[in-house]
Amino acid sequence: MPVVDVHTHMYPPAYMKLMRSRDKIPYVRSFPDDPAAGDRLVILPAEDTASTTRGRPIGREYFDVNEKIAFMSKHGIDVSVISLANPWLDWLPSDTAAETARLVNDDVESMCAQHEGRLYAFGTLPLSAPAEQIVQEVSRLATLDHHRGVVMGTSGLGSGLDDPALDPMYAAIDRTGQLIFLHPHYGLPTSVYGERASDYGHVLPLALGFPLETTIAVTRMLLSGVWDRFPRLQVLLAHSGGTLPFLAGRIESCIAHDAHLKKEGKLGNRRDVWDVLKNNIYLDAVIYGEAGLKAAVDTSGAERLMFGTDHPFFPPLDEGEDEWLSVKLNSQAVRSTFGNNTKIAEAIMGGNAKQILRL
Amino acid sequence: MPVVDVHTHMYPPAYMKLMRSRDKIPYVRSFPDDPAAGDRLVILPAEDTASTTRGRPIGREYFDVNEKIAFMSKHGIDVSVISLANPWLDWLPSDTAAETARLVNDDVESMCAQHEGRLYAFGTLPLSAPAEQIVQEVSRLATLDHHRGVVMGTSGLGSGLDDPALDPMYAAIDRTGQLIFLHPHYGLPTSVYGERASDYGHVLPLALGFPLETTIAVTRMLLSGVWDRFPRLQVLLAHSGGTLPFLAGRIESCIAHDAHLKKEGKLGNRRDVWDVLKNNIYLDAVIYGEAGLKAAVDTSGAERLMFGTDHPFFPPLDEGEDEWLSVKLNSQAVRSTFGNNTKIAEAIMGGNAKQILRL
Repeated sequence: MPVVDVHTHMYPPAYMKLMRSRDKIPYVRSFPDDPAAGDRLVILPAEDTASTTRGRPIGREYFDVNEKIAFMSKHGIDVSVISLANPWLDWLPSDTAAETARLVNDDVESMCAQHEGRLYAFGTLPLSAPAEQIVQEVSRLATLDHHRGVVMGTSGLGSGLDDPALDPMYAAIDRTGQLIFLHPHYGLPTSVYGERASDYGHVLPLALGFPLETTIAVTRMLLSGVWDRFPRLQVLLAHSGGTLPFLAGRIESCIAHDAHLKKEGKLGNRRDVWDVLKNNIYLDAVIYGEAGLKAAVDTSGAERLMFGTDHPFFPPLDEGEDEWLSVKLNSQAVRSTFGNNTKIAEAIMGGNAKQILRL
Repeated sequence: MPVVDVHTHMYPPAYMKLMRSRDKIPYVRSFPDDPAAGDRLVILPAEDTASTTRGRPIGREYFDVNEKIAFMSKHGIDVSVISLANPWLDWLPSDTAAETARLVNDDVESMCAQHEGRLYAFGTLPLSAPAEQIVQEVSRLATLDHHRGVVMGTSGLGSGLDDPALDPMYAAIDRTGQLIFLHPHYGLPTSVYGERASDYGHVLPLALGFPLETTIAVTRMLLSGVWDRFPRLQVLLAHSGGTLPFLAGRIESCIAHDAHLKKEGKLGNRRDVWDVLKNNIYLDAVIYGEAGLKAAVDTSGAERLMFGTDHPFFPPLDEGEDEWLSVKLNSQAVRSTFGNNTKIAEAIMGGNAKQILRL
């Protein structure tokens, strides 16, 4: 059974070119007078205002497909389903978004074709473009040999994934048998981390802001009835659902106890979170531990869980480390929870993805 | 083995009197011209600006100890460890806080004495008072027969529980063998719920804001080294830790991959989240489902989990419902996960609390 990585990112050349031409988020800074300094990527407002060195180092592993293949070989990953890294195309002006999306998606498609059998992809939608152009790109992606769905942040058209104006997009994704890979980017307002947050490096926004953002986004989808209107729509949630598997019970209880929802007649004919978790939600296995992994399996089922790495994010801190800790923590959690080479471990490590994504 | 409820709230008479005398948050509105309208409790800014009826209905179950006892009898609860409901005394001016805390705590103590053997309590600290008065009240609480710790929100002295100025308080709580019951109140900035949030009643702030606030607060405590400085300090986390059991792996991975923490030399000699979960954190079992409950047990151990109800919050929506759904969901989760009347189920339902809290 192959090992498949469903959570792995790249900035393909077309996207890098765009970022190198800009000086506003998202952009890439380079230092022509000091080539040894390398390039730096700036994608978050907090990185842009940092008084010292702005942004994070960005090496070839972010954009060179050969680096992705080398990483895969080193870690025993047979197939990767690559997706554009955040912030995707959320920030593009309306009139250039559709054309840029086509460029970027074609770029990724050609990477996949260069490494036939090893690479597939989730495409990116021009969410700032007019609705018909979004739907057009969904339909076009369905015709590309190596694309299997779309990666998406939580902002939708600007006001979240519970926006009814997204219905044509949801309908098109559903109709073409693609899935949405829902991934965080915006985090939470920095005020929630308090005045000592910078003492803790990037831990609070990365460890908590990201999964909490995902949880809020998917709960808003649920409450707005996305899955009541599109009962077959499939969504793969990054980081094992943020915290959805753990909080599902509380969400359902809060709904069942809400006087406003009752008064509005919304408590009767609705699909509950348990139903949606088992029938519409896939979870990656990027949760770095057994307790989280088991909760993900308990709520969505082992057949809906798929291994991922989050490469090239979370590289080892020490140079010369061969195997990445961030990869090992996730593969070890699968193996220590379900055993080495058991059917269930093999399914999570690749078998599920092979079947679900038709690889 | 007794059934013990460690998460159950009251506003004792001394606190109600204070709230009735006010017209700013927190306060109780009454309608002398229309006694049938009942009283309304306003504790959150969102409730205060609501254009229709401000606040939530508040009945005798919030302040009448006989109602608590009746609720316990109806649900087979032998012992309750009551705590003041949010927002506690966080909002008091510095000069009256200590005296008010004594009044409120004595009020609760006398309730417990009236129902010997059925009621114990977590006291409340005057966190806006000068440090020595906070420590004084910690010491005084340790002398009250029915008090076993303190309930606390996430704001500390105003800037969170990772504030080093809290060390004298942590030291006093630790020294007197009490524990902290950490409970959310402030939630997250409403912007995170989007422009359609009010369509969903109170679901988003209650189901997500509360547990996410707790998770952020406890992670800040961990990162600031509270448990490195106070290795015996015990904290009971509301709602099964918010989302801590699920996110523990991600938190630990983000710490291990953080370049800033490494540069500051903070990655070496520190207690990790798994260690703290197993040795310093207790979790209530207020999580409304099996998956969450199992994750809590996986991370902290079944011997550190204690049943709770969150009474009088989450009452049934339909009048005449005898058994509260919010209680049943939690007790059923324990029994369906660990079996009826098994040792482990009995421990979670009461045995652990009896031993840990010396009831």
